[in-house]
Amino acid sequence: MQHEIEIRVRYQETDGQGRVHHANYLTWFELARVELLRAMGHSYRELEEAGIFLVVAEVSMQYYLPAVFDDVLRLRTTTVRAKGARIEHRYEVIRGEDLLAEGATTVACIDKSGRVTRLPQWLRIT
Amino acid sequence: MQHEIEIRVRYQETDGQGRVHHANYLTWFELARVELLRAMGHSYRELEEAGIFLVVAEVSMQYYLPAVFDDVLRLRTTTVRAKGARIEHRYEVIRGEDLLAEGATTVACIDKSGRVTRLPQWLRIT
Amino acid sequence: MQHEIEIRVRYQETDGQGRVHHANYLTWFELARVELLRAMGHSYRELEEAGIFLVVAEVSMQYYLPAVFDDVLRLRTTTVRAKGARIEHRYEVIRGEDLLAEGATTVACIDKSGRVTRLPQWLRIT
Amino acid sequence: MQHEIEIRVRYQETDGQGRVHHANYLTWFELARVELLRAMGHSYRELEEAGIFLVVAEVSMQYYLPAVFDDVLRLRTTTVRAKGARIEHRYEVIRGEDLLAEGATTVACIDKSGRVTRLPQWLRIT
Repeated sequence: MQHEIEIRVRYQETDGQGRVHHANYLTWFELARVELLRAMGHSYRELEEAGIFLVVAEVSMQYYLPAVFDDVLRLRTTTVRAKGARIEHRYEVIRGEDLLAEGATTVACIDKSGRVTRLPQWLRIT
Repeated sequence: MQHEIEIRVRYQETDGQGRVHHANYLTWFELARVELLRAMGHSYRELEEAGIFLVVAEVSMQYYLPAVFDDVLRLRTTTVRAKGARIEHRYEVIRGEDLLAEGATTVACIDKSGRVTRLPQWLRIT
Repeated sequence: MQHEIEIRVRYQETDGQGRVHHANYLTWFELARVELLRAMGHSYRELEEAGIFLVVAEVSMQYYLPAVFDDVLRLRTTTVRAKGARIEHRYEVIRGEDLLAEGATTVACIDKSGRVTRLPQWLRIT
Repeated sequence: MQHEIEIRVRYQETDGQGRVHHANYLTWFELARVELLRAMGHSYRELEEAGIFLVVAEVSMQYYLPAVFDDVLRLRTTTVRAKGARIEHRYEVIRGEDLLAEGATTVACIDKSGRVTRLPQWLRIT
């Protein structure tokens, strides 16, 4: 499963170095997961309303080139694995021909009480 | 009721202009309300655990001088009025002798269902 | 001059009350000003590259109804006045038929050294 | 070199799950690097004024337990290596006896033009 979204850098996402503050990439990855789910016909809001929560358990990122205000970026997300209680995604942040950053996250599935729980069948990749 | 806290500007709070992004003042005002409550012997966390929520209904702000990374600011908060379902605060953001910004907020008291509700007795000023 | 943009609420923009944190509206207003400028054929990035900066000098906001994660909002921006060194905008945040919030900002035009300067001719409304 | 700071969780740092949004840990790590530098007798602001910038090149994080609003956390930072143009730090986020999260970052030293440059002598660990 692969999906791509477009991100336009907000002024508020820049910092005093005139670049995008590195923490914002995590917010964009989250955005990408929500849109990937939507592209599969699902809504993360409905997932939570059904008592299923996805929480970030692991993150890794490499930053190669800075993004600046008003840049239009492509964020390509790939689901690498989705079984048991965990989903792994990979991300590439691209501007034109340039790969600005790469990342990976693992999200875990929990219930309302915070207990780790198996992914719903339709979220699994087998 | 007046209370003062110290804020040291975080790098993440600056934007591409090399100044503090103006939205962060609202986050600082919120911080100040929580600490003012604590200075009165109360915890906003316990308030919410008891089913009482304070939500921001109105904001006004004037910005006079920019704050920059690592500045140590004093944020002085005054409770102007607290009756019925509403509390009004005023804020001054000060660096050394300079008044950088001023603001005012009105927070409304709601219950878990989102219904406006009277302030608990101990929060009222009469 | 009036312009409308669509905002989809990001998860990161919500807070522990399950609603959009009130400071995010300021970030959205900023987004709206950038897009209004673009709709007029201008780029705020180029403006800054030309040494002209717009900084927020005044804000007022009223919040009527909460927005939640994944809401699709319309943000309608009106330029009320643009003369001398200042531009005034008004904002309405709308979901379906409901007006969730209203706001107004005044931005001031400064040069690289931080000195207040007259708006470029093309930005003025007379 | 090891240093510890205290963080009190801000309301704005929570998200709709009632927990701290995972991106904020990166902001806290940045705070910790600034304070570690200060504990060594240096100011990151002066570093930038002298034309030396530290930018995040790599991040990894593991989240074990959630933090919530008003939690008082200890953030322990260790400089693992500082040579050439790079500094590696490790981080532990602790509440009472519990390790909530761990992370590691690599920051790279660049000059005003964005070119990678050697760390100043006093920042190196040999």
